[in-house]
Amino acid sequence: MIEPRTLKGFRDYLPDVMIPREKLMETARRVYRSYGFSPIDTPALEYEEILIGKGGGETDKQMYRFPDPGGRPVAMRFDLTVPLARFVAQHLNELGLPFKRYHIATVWRGENPQAGRYREFMQCDFDTIGTLSPAADIETALVIHELLLAIGFKDFKIHINNRMVLNGLLERLGLADRSVAVLRALDKLHKIGPDGVAAEMHETAGTTAEQSRDVLRLAELSGKEAGAGGNDAILKELGPLVAGSERGETGVARLAELLAAVRAAGVPESRLRLDVAIARGLDYYTGTIFETFLDQLPNKGSVCSGGRYDNLAELYTSQKLPGIGASLGLDRLLAYMEELGMLPKVVTPAEVFIPYFDAARLHDYLRLAAQIRRGGFGVEVYPDPKKLGQQLKYADRRGFRVALVAGQNELEAGTVQVKNLATATSETVRLDPEASELLAVLRRLLS
Amino acid sequence: MIEPRTLKGFRDYLPDVMIPREKLMETARRVYRSYGFSPIDTPALEYEEILIGKGGGETDKQMYRFPDPGGRPVAMRFDLTVPLARFVAQHLNELGLPFKRYHIATVWRGENPQAGRYREFMQCDFDTIGTLSPAADIETALVIHELLLAIGFKDFKIHINNRMVLNGLLERLGLADRSVAVLRALDKLHKIGPDGVAAEMHETAGTTAEQSRDVLRLAELSGKEAGAGGNDAILKELGPLVAGSERGETGVARLAELLAAVRAAGVPESRLRLDVAIARGLDYYTGTIFETFLDQLPNKGSVCSGGRYDNLAELYTSQKLPGIGASLGLDRLLAYMEELGMLPKVVTPAEVFIPYFDAARLHDYLRLAAQIRRGGFGVEVYPDPKKLGQQLKYADRRGFRVALVAGQNELEAGTVQVKNLATATSETVRLDPEASELLAVLRRLLS
Repeated sequence: MIEPRTLKGFRDYLPDVMIPREKLMETARRVYRSYGFSPIDTPALEYEEILIGKGGGETDKQMYRFPDPGGRPVAMRFDLTVPLARFVAQHLNELGLPFKRYHIATVWRGENPQAGRYREFMQCDFDTIGTLSPAADIETALVIHELLLAIGFKDFKIHINNRMVLNGLLERLGLADRSVAVLRALDKLHKIGPDGVAAEMHETAGTTAEQSRDVLRLAELSGKEAGAGGNDAILKELGPLVAGSERGETGVARLAELLAAVRAAGVPESRLRLDVAIARGLDYYTGTIFETFLDQLPNKGSVCSGGRYDNLAELYTSQKLPGIGASLGLDRLLAYMEELGMLPKVVTPAEVFIPYFDAARLHDYLRLAAQIRRGGFGVEVYPDPKKLGQQLKYADRRGFRVALVAGQNELEAGTVQVKNLATATSETVRLDPEASELLAVLRRLLS
Repeated sequence: MIEPRTLKGFRDYLPDVMIPREKLMETARRVYRSYGFSPIDTPALEYEEILIGKGGGETDKQMYRFPDPGGRPVAMRFDLTVPLARFVAQHLNELGLPFKRYHIATVWRGENPQAGRYREFMQCDFDTIGTLSPAADIETALVIHELLLAIGFKDFKIHINNRMVLNGLLERLGLADRSVAVLRALDKLHKIGPDGVAAEMHETAGTTAEQSRDVLRLAELSGKEAGAGGNDAILKELGPLVAGSERGETGVARLAELLAAVRAAGVPESRLRLDVAIARGLDYYTGTIFETFLDQLPNKGSVCSGGRYDNLAELYTSQKLPGIGASLGLDRLLAYMEELGMLPKVVTPAEVFIPYFDAARLHDYLRLAAQIRRGGFGVEVYPDPKKLGQQLKYADRRGFRVALVAGQNELEAGTVQVKNLATATSETVRLDPEASELLAVLRRLLS
C-alpha cells in the first residue's frame, strides 16, 4: 500500500475551495474578454535558457529544472511574463499589434513554503502590448476596478503611481545614476523612519541633506489620505518637486490624465489613490504602476498589481515592445475572501437535489431532472434508492438549496414536494407537462 | 539574443485556437455542474511512487521524472485518474460518498510526438465514486449525450458495452482464465478477419472451433446497424450467448436497463449503439463501457470514453471504491471541429469595436464603452488615435462584428454610426443617456 500524500508546498483543491476558485477565474475571464483581451496558453515546460533569460534573479534558484527524456535542459514556468515575452517574440507576425491577451495558468516555484505560500499557484495576468498610448494605461485601471467589483468587493483602493515621477525627481537632483541605492533606502521608510532613510541614502548614495529632504518629501506625499480632493492636492504638490525634469513633468501629467479619464469613465474618487511611494521592483516597470488593497485588510498585500514597461521581449527579439499589464493574485484573493467570510460553505455546484425515493421510479426522476436542467438549474439525482432521511442528510451536508421529493403518492397525483432546505419548509407543486409551474417555484426560491 | 521557440511536442495556443478551446472547457464545466459534479484540482507534480503505482505500464516510460530541489523523486502527472485515486484515498472522510467530481487539467507524456499528438494536453474527466448503482451508469451516458449536444454536435453515436457480457461468455465457455489472450486476438478482427482471429485464439488460448465461433459470434453482433430496433435485436441475440453465466446475464440485463433509462430521459435511439466489441483496455474497466464517435468522422478515434471500475484506489487505501466515469478528449475534439469547419476564425472575444477616432474625445469613448459593457457586450477601444481606416482594418482582421464610429460631428449631434463589419452597412443611432437605443440595435445585430 502506498501512502496517499501530496508534496510539501503543494495542495489539493477540494470542492469547497475549488468552486469559488473556478468562479473567480470565470469572473476574471468575463471581465478581461469584455475589454477585448484574448486568451492564450503556453507550455508549462520551456527550454531552460528561455526561462533563465538574463539570469541572476531570485527565481533562478526557485525554478524546477531538469533534463527531459531527450536530455534537453528544461524548466517549469515560474511566471507568465517570461513565457509571454517568448510567445510574442515568436508569433509577432501572426498576432499583430497592439496585442491584448490574458493568461490564467499555473506556475511553479521551489521556494521554501511559508505560511500561505505554495510551490504551485495560479497566475491571472492581462497585458496590452505594442502601444505607448496612455489610453492603454487608463484601460488597465478600468479593468482592475471592474475586476474587483465583479468579484464582489466595494471597498478597495487602487494605488497609482508613475515611475517617471521619482525618476524625474532624481534627475533634477542629479541622482539618476544612484536610483537603485535611493530606492533601496526609501523602501525601508516604514521600518526605519525618515531619519534612518536619510542616513542610509547619505551612506550608500552620497546624498546631501537637501537631496534627502526632497526625496523624503515625495515619499511623504503618499502618506496623505486620498479622496475628497486628496489626489488632486498630491498632484499639485508633485509639480514643484519635479519641475525642470522633462521625465518628471511627463510623469505628473500622465498621472493627472489617468486620474481624469478613470473618473470620467465612472470610477469613484474614493477608490483611487495617488501613491508616489510604490515602485514594484527596481527595473522592470518604467511608467504607470498599480497596486490594489482591500479596505478591510489594509495590512495585507496587494491583490492586483502591475504597470507599464518599455520593452517586454528584448531577450528574444530586436523589436521594441512596450506595454502595460497587471496580474490578479487569484489564490491570495481567495485566501482573503475566506478570511472575510465571503465564501459560502457549499460543495455542490447544483442547487436542486432529487432523492431516489421510489426504487421503481428512476425514469420519472431522470425525466424531471432533465426538465429542470432545461430550465437552467443544476440538479443531482441521488444514485442509490436509500432511506429518504439519509439522502436528505447528504443533500444538507453538501449545501443543496432545494430538494424535490416525489414518492409514489406524489407521482400518481402528478405533483412533487418542493423542500426548501435552508428554511426546512415545503410546498406541493403540480407537475404540468413542461414543469413550468415547478420552474417558476424554483426561480422564486433560488433567485 | 535567445531564439524564441517551444519544446518539441509542445505548442502555444494563440487566440484563434484558445477562444474555442476555452469555450469547450466552459461548456464541459457547465454540463458537469448541471448534473451535480464538483470541480477539484490536484498538483501537477506528485511523488514518483504515487504516479508509478503498480508500475509496468506504458506510461512509466513516458513520465517526466526528476528529483525536486529537495532531492525527492517527483513526476508530472500523466493522467487525471491516478491523481484522483490518490486524492480520494487521502480525503475520503472529508469528501463523503458518493463523490462526484470533474477535473479539467493538463497532463504530460514524454512520448514520441506524432502527427496530432502532443506531450502536453488537456484532460476533461468526470467520475461518480462510491456507488454500484446502475443509476450512475445511466447518468454517465446522459452526461456524455448532453456534452456533445452542448458543444454543438447533433450527429454522433454513443457506443455502449458491458464488460460482463464478454466475461460471462468466456466463463460459460470455460475460457475465463484465458481472457487476455482471447481479447488480444479479438482486437485484431478488423485487421486479420474472423479466420485469422480464430487461428490466433486457437494458438494462444487453445480454443476449440466451437469456442472460437461463439466468441466471434459476439464480436459480429457489433457490426449490425443500430437504430430502428437494432439495439434491441442485438440484446435479444446476446441472451443465448451468455445463458447460464450469472455474470453474463447480469451484463445483458444492465445493458437493457441502461438503454431503457437513457431513452426514457430523452436520448434518441439513433445516438445509441450497443457495441459488444469495445473493450477499452484489458483490466481497468469491469462493467459498462462507453465510446463516442462523430458521424461525420467515423474513422477517427472516440471523443468521449469511459466506463465502470470495481476499485479505483486499491494502491492507496484498503477501502473498496467502485465508480464510473468518462473523459472528454478536449484537444482531439477541437482538432475534429477545426477539420469540420466548426471553428470561426475570430481572435477577439469582444463583439464591438470603438475606434479612437477623435484624439480629444477619449473620455467619450470610454463612457460609451462602459455603457455597452453594462448592456452585456464586450467592447474594445483602440488605444491609439490612428487613422480610422487603419483601425477598421485591425477590427476586421480580428473578427469584430460591429464598429461604433463617433467623430466630433456624431458626438456633437449626440449620435454614433453603427457599422456592421460583416455586411459593410451602417446606420446612425441616437445616443440617449442610457444608450438604450444603441443597445437595442446591438442586440438586433449581434443576436
